[in-house]
Amino acid sequence: MALDTYDKIMMLAKRRGFLYPSYEIYGGSAGFYDYGPLGSRLKENLENLWRSYYLLKDANVEISTPTITLYDVLKASGHVDEFTDLTVDCEQCQTSFKVEDIIPDDQTVEQAIAEDTITCPECGSKLTDAHPVNLMFATKIGIGKTRDAFLRPETAQGIFTGFHLLYRYAREKLPFGVVQLGKGYRNEVSPRQGPLRMREFSMAEAEIFFDPENKTHELFDEVKDHELYLYDNVNEMKISMQNAVNDGIINNQALAFYMYLTQSILLEAGIDPEKFRFRKHADDELAHYAQECWDAELFSERFGWVECVGIADRSAYDLNAHITASKTDMYALRRYDEPKKVTKKQIIPKMNVLGPEFKQHAGKIKEQLEKMDPETIQEPIQLSIDNEQIEIPAHCYEIEEVTTTVPGDKFVPHVIEPSYGIDRILYCLLEHSYKEGTKNDEEYHMLSIPANMAPVTVGVFPLTNDKKLITLAKSIDRTLRENHVFTTYDDGGSIGRRYARMDEIGTPFCITIDFDSLTDAQVTIRDRDTTDQKRISIDDVPKFIQTELSKK
Amino acid sequence: MALDTYDKIMMLAKRRGFLYPSYEIYGGSAGFYDYGPLGSRLKENLENLWRSYYLLKDANVEISTPTITLYDVLKASGHVDEFTDLTVDCEQCQTSFKVEDIIPDDQTVEQAIAEDTITCPECGSKLTDAHPVNLMFATKIGIGKTRDAFLRPETAQGIFTGFHLLYRYAREKLPFGVVQLGKGYRNEVSPRQGPLRMREFSMAEAEIFFDPENKTHELFDEVKDHELYLYDNVNEMKISMQNAVNDGIINNQALAFYMYLTQSILLEAGIDPEKFRFRKHADDELAHYAQECWDAELFSERFGWVECVGIADRSAYDLNAHITASKTDMYALRRYDEPKKVTKKQIIPKMNVLGPEFKQHAGKIKEQLEKMDPETIQEPIQLSIDNEQIEIPAHCYEIEEVTTTVPGDKFVPHVIEPSYGIDRILYCLLEHSYKEGTKNDEEYHMLSIPANMAPVTVGVFPLTNDKKLITLAKSIDRTLRENHVFTTYDDGGSIGRRYARMDEIGTPFCITIDFDSLTDAQVTIRDRDTTDQKRISIDDVPKFIQTELSKK
Repeated sequence: MALDTYDKIMMLAKRRGFLYPSYEIYGGSAGFYDYGPLGSRLKENLENLWRSYYLLKDANVEISTPTITLYDVLKASGHVDEFTDLTVDCEQCQTSFKVEDIIPDDQTVEQAIAEDTITCPECGSKLTDAHPVNLMFATKIGIGKTRDAFLRPETAQGIFTGFHLLYRYAREKLPFGVVQLGKGYRNEVSPRQGPLRMREFSMAEAEIFFDPENKTHELFDEVKDHELYLYDNVNEMKISMQNAVNDGIINNQALAFYMYLTQSILLEAGIDPEKFRFRKHADDELAHYAQECWDAELFSERFGWVECVGIADRSAYDLNAHITASKTDMYALRRYDEPKKVTKKQIIPKMNVLGPEFKQHAGKIKEQLEKMDPETIQEPIQLSIDNEQIEIPAHCYEIEEVTTTVPGDKFVPHVIEPSYGIDRILYCLLEHSYKEGTKNDEEYHMLSIPANMAPVTVGVFPLTNDKKLITLAKSIDRTLRENHVFTTYDDGGSIGRRYARMDEIGTPFCITIDFDSLTDAQVTIRDRDTTDQKRISIDDVPKFIQTELSKK
Repeated sequence: MALDTYDKIMMLAKRRGFLYPSYEIYGGSAGFYDYGPLGSRLKENLENLWRSYYLLKDANVEISTPTITLYDVLKASGHVDEFTDLTVDCEQCQTSFKVEDIIPDDQTVEQAIAEDTITCPECGSKLTDAHPVNLMFATKIGIGKTRDAFLRPETAQGIFTGFHLLYRYAREKLPFGVVQLGKGYRNEVSPRQGPLRMREFSMAEAEIFFDPENKTHELFDEVKDHELYLYDNVNEMKISMQNAVNDGIINNQALAFYMYLTQSILLEAGIDPEKFRFRKHADDELAHYAQECWDAELFSERFGWVECVGIADRSAYDLNAHITASKTDMYALRRYDEPKKVTKKQIIPKMNVLGPEFKQHAGKIKEQLEKMDPETIQEPIQLSIDNEQIEIPAHCYEIEEVTTTVPGDKFVPHVIEPSYGIDRILYCLLEHSYKEGTKNDEEYHMLSIPANMAPVTVGVFPLTNDKKLITLAKSIDRTLRENHVFTTYDDGGSIGRRYARMDEIGTPFCITIDFDSLTDAQVTIRDRDTTDQKRISIDDVPKFIQTELSKK
């Protein structure tokens, strides 16, 4: 059977140390991968690139919250009830399947269920009783008296639950954004698609809080002529951000700006622009919290267009949910130019009367009276206190006009959320950079990863095993590392073979130290993409590399 | 009640955005913290400093493996059986306690149990039945047919289980090291001590694999005169690495080198050298896997000497455990200069005889025969196949002399493990950097964090709210961010107050843009520690900051 691109990438990834299936020595476990030495560096380079856009270009702040999340948080956010997959179980072979994965090709999930056409892909049994299964990993906090918890399905909730603190950090100004990078978890029913559908994955999410009356972005004007690659489920188009917003294709500036940021990051990371597009969610596919959503999709030969980033307008959904569930004040304030004096009638309980008359209930009665609007009460006032109906005579309170100073209007901010699936982007990056062919009658592979993304920046080779060459090569290798350049020192095999090894992992530069180097203090530097070689002075090597890395 | 340093640090940490107790809006949950915007940056700066030592100075590689770990892995590693705390439960108030936390001050755990003196700190009931409780968070992978798993108690196992792949990546040369940074989990019975004892924490671990016959380090000679601060449980001493190894105080060069690396990282990060020492584990406190262990301890005013890094010689413990449990070849090879031809006798089963005579057992018989050593067998050979004793007649096999080429001796590498508790180091760093006093009759706080560790490098202030100043200040702020410098733009309150805010979070530099700046293109830059101010050209600002940051 011929290998497809996916097979080739995954073989290269394992052979060279990008990705290993986890726990192979114990039979493996679907949906888990180890990032090897090269994969881990590539991932870190991508995350640092991401940070340079989200923390430095767009000055958001980063936080880091626990992966173990209290039940209460995810109940309020809707995940306990809605983070599910429709599942069927085969009683014959004791396996569970996600309905979507095993319906006949020509049917929708609804049709397959209505027409009863689902059969077990393992044993052929007829499968019925499709039911939603929650996809969160459950655990318990503590010993004895435990508390229910889950591994977080997204990093976002850690931002929402701290909104009141973060808003204070931002000195109560909107818009402001908070990002988080880290693990997310999803206990897939039966994960397929390798690194595209993992049970434990890496995310980078940003939650940018806006006044719902003002979803503009400070930097929009500077970039409004940039073109975005859009797909509205019918046509693909290239359209300027300005026009997309003006024509209502994209709802607001803020959403468009974060699409622009996403496109910039992905293309700078090395994603093929021909295999990149934004697709708008149809109304019936929007998540339970989303008002408008665009996916950045990357094309993969085996899997087609793959959702790698979702940029959603989550409106006030999450903050509202946590305000309701936790009763915490998580409102923002739209300040007036000058604080306003507002005069209104208010009920003033008389504690010296309530106390003797209602004893232990007096405190609660006071609390309830103060909350009531004197304009709408019906006297005598009836209150329900500790499940008891109590009538409050008029001599227990007064109604007075009270003037207070109000600094502004309270409201619940809206949030724009760009959410990146790091592992998916990395897989697509490998696929898009992969080139193959033959060289000197041998199979030849290359990853054309951009220089500042490559896991190893420089290969350092002594021409032969001569001790002087080795000493000089090791000293150059060390100088580069002291300059924060990741290198691989390699003295094994022919130079051609060493070049080939470096090309296969995407190393942009190789330096060869030869016998002339010992006298002229120069080395040969070879460019991966052009295979051009030139001599440069050893002293200039670090500077040369830095200059190349800062090119885009 | 007077606040102690811990209280003050934790209040500052929450007020200014370093650390927030997690899930406060849902009543909180002990043992979990959110890293706020400043804490998150500080943490990242520490991790990057760590990486610069472990990946660039000492050229190890980094990997990243799942936090969800199969039962099999942690059964083999000993964690299922030995990662426990001795616990008592109070039936009266339904709370569980770690015995160590609640014994009388003058007793050991053993004494308290023997003399039955443990009482519930909540309700005073007598507590008996102390029993070990496993401290791993449990979960299940999959739906229906599930697999038991835990959240990893350490990142190390992810390195050991991939050793055979990583050894191949290192082209089968020793020593080589693999590091991992990420979350670890420990379901503490009743966590106290804030960020010093978390249920979900951040670790940075390195596993350096050595040939047990050669625990030297390539860079040892360069640094052997450096002095380490050691404490052998009796005396504190300052001693050179060379002498410590020669005198047998530290077992080998490799262990000493990673202690040196640890000391360098912690002091560069800003730990007070007066509050730093290495303490050797007494024999009876060594972990189940350790042969020799040194803790880097940092002094905290409330908690005393706190273990923040453990540097252990784990010998071959873990690899042996996984070889035994998984039957995988995880050996290393000590190559001969030339491969050796080795001639030895071998049993050659005759399948054409075994097949007809033993039918379905023939395959297993062949397998067992081939593993036997002809020098030590007793004929007739007795085998146990599928719980059946079977005698194998001599005509079923031959004994022949076979010559094979052997490239070297196989052995299980030893491992030196420096393991860092990132959260503990960060807390101690805050405590060690904290300074307080009064300034203009107001309370004044400062964090004297080293410049390249500070969460914000530069505060940028327009002198007044004049639009021209604001525009210029924002443009300088932006230029700095484009140069990868983290800034805080602040136009609120007097300059003095803005300086104070920046001092409190440890910002080393503040730039003020005043009306002169509009004409002379210069700004005032103020140093946190000296409070010296000087004028520099706006164009020189990024360069000035870079130069300051590269000073150590």
